[in-house]
Amino acid sequence: MSAQDRIAAIILAAGKGTRMKSTLPKVMHRIAGRSMIGHVLANLAPLQPQRVAVVVAPGMEGVKAEVAPAPIAVQGEQLGTGHAVRSARDAVGAFAGTILILFGDTPFVSTETLRRLVERRGAKDEPAVVVLGMRPADAGAYGRLVLDGQGNLERIVEFKEATAAERAIGLCNSGVMAVDGTILWTLLDLIRNDNAKGEYYLTDIVALARADGRNCAVVEAPETELLGVNSRAELAVAEALYQDQRRQAAMEAGATLIDPGTVYFAADTELGRDVVVGPNVVFGAGVRVADNVEIRAFCHIEGAVIGAGAVIGPFARLRTGTTIGEGAHVGNFVEVKNSELGAGAKANHLSYLGDADVGAKSNIGAGTITCNYDGFLKARTEIGQDAFIGSNSALVAPVRIGAGAIVGAGSVITRDVEADAIAVARGEQVARAGKAREFRDRRRKMKSDKK
Amino acid sequence: MSAQDRIAAIILAAGKGTRMKSTLPKVMHRIAGRSMIGHVLANLAPLQPQRVAVVVAPGMEGVKAEVAPAPIAVQGEQLGTGHAVRSARDAVGAFAGTILILFGDTPFVSTETLRRLVERRGAKDEPAVVVLGMRPADAGAYGRLVLDGQGNLERIVEFKEATAAERAIGLCNSGVMAVDGTILWTLLDLIRNDNAKGEYYLTDIVALARADGRNCAVVEAPETELLGVNSRAELAVAEALYQDQRRQAAMEAGATLIDPGTVYFAADTELGRDVVVGPNVVFGAGVRVADNVEIRAFCHIEGAVIGAGAVIGPFARLRTGTTIGEGAHVGNFVEVKNSELGAGAKANHLSYLGDADVGAKSNIGAGTITCNYDGFLKARTEIGQDAFIGSNSALVAPVRIGAGAIVGAGSVITRDVEADAIAVARGEQVARAGKAREFRDRRRKMKSDKK
Amino acid sequence: MSAQDRIAAIILAAGKGTRMKSTLPKVMHRIAGRSMIGHVLANLAPLQPQRVAVVVAPGMEGVKAEVAPAPIAVQGEQLGTGHAVRSARDAVGAFAGTILILFGDTPFVSTETLRRLVERRGAKDEPAVVVLGMRPADAGAYGRLVLDGQGNLERIVEFKEATAAERAIGLCNSGVMAVDGTILWTLLDLIRNDNAKGEYYLTDIVALARADGRNCAVVEAPETELLGVNSRAELAVAEALYQDQRRQAAMEAGATLIDPGTVYFAADTELGRDVVVGPNVVFGAGVRVADNVEIRAFCHIEGAVIGAGAVIGPFARLRTGTTIGEGAHVGNFVEVKNSELGAGAKANHLSYLGDADVGAKSNIGAGTITCNYDGFLKARTEIGQDAFIGSNSALVAPVRIGAGAIVGAGSVITRDVEADAIAVARGEQVARAGKAREFRDRRRKMKSDKK
Repeated sequence: MSAQDRIAAIILAAGKGTRMKSTLPKVMHRIAGRSMIGHVLANLAPLQPQRVAVVVAPGMEGVKAEVAPAPIAVQGEQLGTGHAVRSARDAVGAFAGTILILFGDTPFVSTETLRRLVERRGAKDEPAVVVLGMRPADAGAYGRLVLDGQGNLERIVEFKEATAAERAIGLCNSGVMAVDGTILWTLLDLIRNDNAKGEYYLTDIVALARADGRNCAVVEAPETELLGVNSRAELAVAEALYQDQRRQAAMEAGATLIDPGTVYFAADTELGRDVVVGPNVVFGAGVRVADNVEIRAFCHIEGAVIGAGAVIGPFARLRTGTTIGEGAHVGNFVEVKNSELGAGAKANHLSYLGDADVGAKSNIGAGTITCNYDGFLKARTEIGQDAFIGSNSALVAPVRIGAGAIVGAGSVITRDVEADAIAVARGEQVARAGKAREFRDRRRKMKSDKK
Repeated sequence: MSAQDRIAAIILAAGKGTRMKSTLPKVMHRIAGRSMIGHVLANLAPLQPQRVAVVVAPGMEGVKAEVAPAPIAVQGEQLGTGHAVRSARDAVGAFAGTILILFGDTPFVSTETLRRLVERRGAKDEPAVVVLGMRPADAGAYGRLVLDGQGNLERIVEFKEATAAERAIGLCNSGVMAVDGTILWTLLDLIRNDNAKGEYYLTDIVALARADGRNCAVVEAPETELLGVNSRAELAVAEALYQDQRRQAAMEAGATLIDPGTVYFAADTELGRDVVVGPNVVFGAGVRVADNVEIRAFCHIEGAVIGAGAVIGPFARLRTGTTIGEGAHVGNFVEVKNSELGAGAKANHLSYLGDADVGAKSNIGAGTITCNYDGFLKARTEIGQDAFIGSNSALVAPVRIGAGAIVGAGSVITRDVEADAIAVARGEQVARAGKAREFRDRRRKMKSDKK
Repeated sequence: MSAQDRIAAIILAAGKGTRMKSTLPKVMHRIAGRSMIGHVLANLAPLQPQRVAVVVAPGMEGVKAEVAPAPIAVQGEQLGTGHAVRSARDAVGAFAGTILILFGDTPFVSTETLRRLVERRGAKDEPAVVVLGMRPADAGAYGRLVLDGQGNLERIVEFKEATAAERAIGLCNSGVMAVDGTILWTLLDLIRNDNAKGEYYLTDIVALARADGRNCAVVEAPETELLGVNSRAELAVAEALYQDQRRQAAMEAGATLIDPGTVYFAADTELGRDVVVGPNVVFGAGVRVADNVEIRAFCHIEGAVIGAGAVIGPFARLRTGTTIGEGAHVGNFVEVKNSELGAGAKANHLSYLGDADVGAKSNIGAGTITCNYDGFLKARTEIGQDAFIGSNSALVAPVRIGAGAIVGAGSVITRDVEADAIAVARGEQVARAGKAREFRDRRRKMKSDKK
C-alpha cells in the first residue's frame, strides 16, 4: 500500500442480533475475550485509518465505550445496509480516499485482506467499488458476484432475484467493500427502495457506479475470514475457529500443546520456544511466557509475565500484574495477583499472594496468605530474598520480611521482620489427656439420645 | 392425548450387559448423572402412567430402589423379549388401556415420541400394536418393518430371516411398542419358541395380532432417540449425544458457552439469559443460574442456586444447599456447601464455607475456614451483613459474627462477635534477631556432615 | 518367536527435527509423558534384544541418559539412512541374528509387529531383509514396495523415481526393517550415493540382497503404528492417537470415562473395574486404581496407588509416593504427596498432606497443612487412627498425633499429642466493642480526604 493511500472505515453494528437472545448488542459478544467489534477494530488498526465510524441502533450506547475514540452514529430506523452506511455520513463526511465498509459481526477479516482491498482500489483502473468476494463450500442464499468478460465486477445479484445461471456462480458477496470516498455519498443517495422489503441495499452501488462509467472489482478472501455470527452457536463456532488458528500458530512457533483443543488463547498471548502447555489451560489477556516454561494442566493465567524455565501449576491462577521470575515455581491451588516472584522463588501449595514482592529463592510455605486488604485499602507485602515463610502463615500487609528471615509455621505476622531473624506468632500448645475420649463418649451419647 | 387414555408401561431391564464388564446392572449406569433407567422413567413420567413395572434379572435388586415406587418383576430365566414382558404379568395385570414396552438401556426415547405412540394407539383404526420404527443411517442387522399396501404394519421380520427385498427396507424395528392392554397377555401366550435360539420373540405379536384380524401400525422416531447402550464406549457416546443436545439448547436459550464441548450439564440444569460459561464447567444435579451470571473456567457446581449478576470461579466448587446472592462473588479454590451468601458478598480465595450464612456485602478473606464439624455434629456459622472476616481465619461453629464486625486476620474465633466489634484471636509475634542465620548454618552443617 | 532367535536393534534418532523449532532433540519430545524414543525402547523391550544402539547427531548428548544403558552412536554428518545405520557398526558389530532398524520419531510400532518382523525373518525361506509395509489412506510420496510374482519383496522404489504403475501400488515403505545381522554391514558397504542428493539410502539393501540371491519379504502393519512425528502439530496428533487407544482400552476393561476425550493416561496407568472417571482427569506416571473408585472431575494424579471404593476429587492432586486406603476420601483443593491415608480416612477440603501417615478413619479438617519442610530437611507427620484434626491446623513435622486424639481448630501443633488427648494451640480471642465501626469511619474519611 502506498503511503499516500488515505483510509476511512464505516463499521455496521446496528444489527439487533435477535437470535443471540441477549440484552447485549450483538457486536459486544466476545471471542477470545475480545468483543467482535474489538476484533474488527484490531484488524483495521495496522492500516491506520484516518476516520472510523461505527453505526449502531438506538439503545446501543454500550458500544460507544468499546469503540472509543471512534464515534458512533445512530441509525434511527433499520432500512437496509445502504441506509445504515448513510447514517455515518456526518461522522465520516466527504473523504478523498478509500472508505472501507465493514461489519461488526464479521470479526475475522484480516489486516492482509483489508490491505488487498485498499490496494486494489488504488490500482490503475481505479475501481470505484471493490467488493470482497468469497467462495463458500455451500453458497446457499448468498448474493452472487457477476463478472464481466474482463473479470471486473458487473453487478451483485441477490439470490432471490438470481437466474439459474447466476445461482450457479460460486463467487459470493461477503458484504465487505472498499469504496471511492469521493463518490460514496452520491452513490448512496441514488439507491432506491422500490423492492419487496422496501429497503436500501448497499449492493446497488455497484450497478450505479457502473452506470456512471466507473469500473468495479472483486478481491477474494477465504470463507473462514468471512464467518458471520448470528447466534450463540455460531459464536461458539467462531471462537473454536479462532482458537484453532492460535493453537496451530503456537505449535508452529515451537510450543508443545499436549492437547491443543483444550488450550485457550487470548488475542495477545505470547509463548516462547519449548514452552510446554498441559491440557486445560486458559490464557486471558496480557500474558507473555518466556522460553522453556512448563505450564501444567488446569491453569488460568491472565496479565502475567512468566520468566524462562518457570514451572506453573497444575491448578495455578495468575492474575493481572504478576511477574514470575526465571525458574520460579507456582504450584497447585495458588493464586498470585499483582505480585512479583523473584528468580527461583517457590510458592507451591494453597497460597494467596496478592500485592506482594517475593525475593529471589524465597520459599512460601503451603497455605500462606498475604492479607492485602482491610476492606478499604490494599497494602503490599515485601519479602526479601532467601526468606522462608512457614506454612499456614498470614502476613498482614503492609509488612516487610527481611532477606533470609524465617517465619514460623502458623504465624500471623503483623510487624516487620528484620533480615535473618526468626519470627513466630502463634498460640501455646496445650494438651488435655484423655479429653478426646471423653468428648467422643459425650457426643455418642447425644447422638444415641436423639434417636 | 385425550384425558381418558390410560397408560401402563413395562420396562425391560434384565439384560446382563456383559460387555459393560461391571458388577452394576447395565441400566444403573449413568448418563448426565442419572441412571439410564432413570432417564426412561423421567421421559415417561409426563404421561402419568397408572402402572409401571420394571423387569430385571435375578440379583439385580439394586434396581429396585432406583425405580421405586415402580415394582420390579424378576425374570428368572432369559428366554427372549416375549418371555421378559410376560414376567411383568403379575405386576401389571389386565389393563384396559395402552401398555408401553420400553427398554432400560435405550434411555433417550422422548416424552413426545411416547405421546405419539399412545396417540396412534388411540386413533380410529385402533391398532392393537404400534411399533416404534426408525431409519438408521446403517440399518445393519436390525429387524425390518414390513408394511402392507395401506401403510400399516404387516409384520416384523428378523434380519437373519429376511429376504433380499426385505433387507432393502430402511424402516427398522426399535423394539419399543405400544400394545392394547386388553390383549397383550393373550398375544404373549400365543408366541412360540420353535426357532433356532429357542426364545420367545416379542416381535411375533404383530403377526399374531394381524392373524387375529387386528390392525398394527408404525410411528417413527429419529435414530438418536433410539440409541442403545451395550458397552462403556457406547455409554460415552450416549453421554456425548445427551450433552450436545443440552449444550445446543442452552445456547439457543441465550447462554454463551465459550467452548460448548467442555460444559457438562445435568438433566435439570437451568441457565438464565446472558449467562456466560467458561471452558470446563461441570454442573451436577439441582443447579439454577439466574441472568447475567458469569461462571468462569474450571467450576464444579451442584445443588446451587445462583443469583443474577453473580461471578463464580475460576476453580470454584459449589455444593448442595448453596444459595449465592445477586452480584455475589465466589472465587478460586473456594468451596461452598449448604450455605447462603447474601447479595454482593465475596469469598474470593481459598476458603471453605460450610453450613454458613454470610450477610449481604460481607467480605470473606482469603483462606477463611468455617469449622462446621466436630467429628460428630455439624453446626452453623452466621455472619451478619457488611462484616469483614480477615484472611486465614477459622470460625469455629456454632458461632455468630455480628453485622459490621471485623475479625482480625489469622484469628480462631470460638465465641460470638457482636455487631461492629473487632475480634482478634492470635498469638503474639515474637522475633529473635539473627536466629534464622544460625538455623541455616546448623542445617547446612548437618547436610554436609551427612555426606 | 523361537527362544533361539537373537535380536539386536539400531534406532535412528539423528534427525534434526527442524520443524519442531526446539532445542531438544526431536526424539526427546514426549507423548503421554514418555519420550518418543522411550516409547520405541518400551515396545522393543519384551523382545529382549541383546544389543541396542541409538544413532544420534552431534550435540544430542541429552539422548544418552534417556536411552541408557543402550549406547549412543554419533553420526557425524547426515548422509542418508544407510549412512546412519552404518554409524552403529562399532556399537552393534557382527551379529548372528536379526537386526531391527527402527526410528526414534516413529514411536508406535507395536511389540506384536516387531515380533512378526522377527518371526518372518526366521521363516524357512530365510529372507535377508524383511521390510515393514503399510497401506496409508493417502500413499502420497512414500516409497513403494514392489513385490515379485511370489509375493516376495523385489525392491523399494522411491516415489520420485517410480513409474505410474509403481505409483499405483498401495503398499508403502515404512522404513522399519529386520535384517540378517550376518550380512547387514556387507550390504551397507555396497550402497552407493550416486543419486541426486548424494545420500546413502538404506532402502537400497533390498535390491542388493536380491542381487546376491537372497530373498526379501514384507510384513504389514496398520498405518497408525507408523505415524511419524516431524512437527509439534504432528506430536499433538500422535498424543491424541495414543490417548484415544488408551481410553478405548480403559472402557473395554470396565471403567467408565464420562467424557473419554478429556482423560489423559500415562503409559502405565492401571484402572480397576467399575472405576468412574469424571471429565478432565490427568494421570501421570505410576498410577494404580483399584475397583469401584470414583475419580471426579479436575484431578491430577501421579505416582499414587488408590484403594477400592475411594473417592477422589473434584480438584484433587495426588503426587508421587501416595497411597490412598480403601474407601478413603480426598476432596477439593487437596494435595497429597508421599503420604499414606488409611482406610476410610478423609481429607476433603483445602489441605496439604506431605510426608504424612494418616491412620484409618481419621478426619483431616479443612485447611489443614502439614509443615513438612524447614527449608533444608523434610520430616514426617504421623497421625493415628480415628484422630480428628481440626480445621485450619498446622502440624509442624516431625510430629505425632496419637490414635483418637483431637486437635482443636486453628492450632499450630509443634509437639506430639498423645492418644485420646485434645490439643489446642491458638491465641486467646479478644473483642473490642464498636471498634469496627470506628475503623470504618476512619478509613472512609481517609478515602474521602484523598479525593
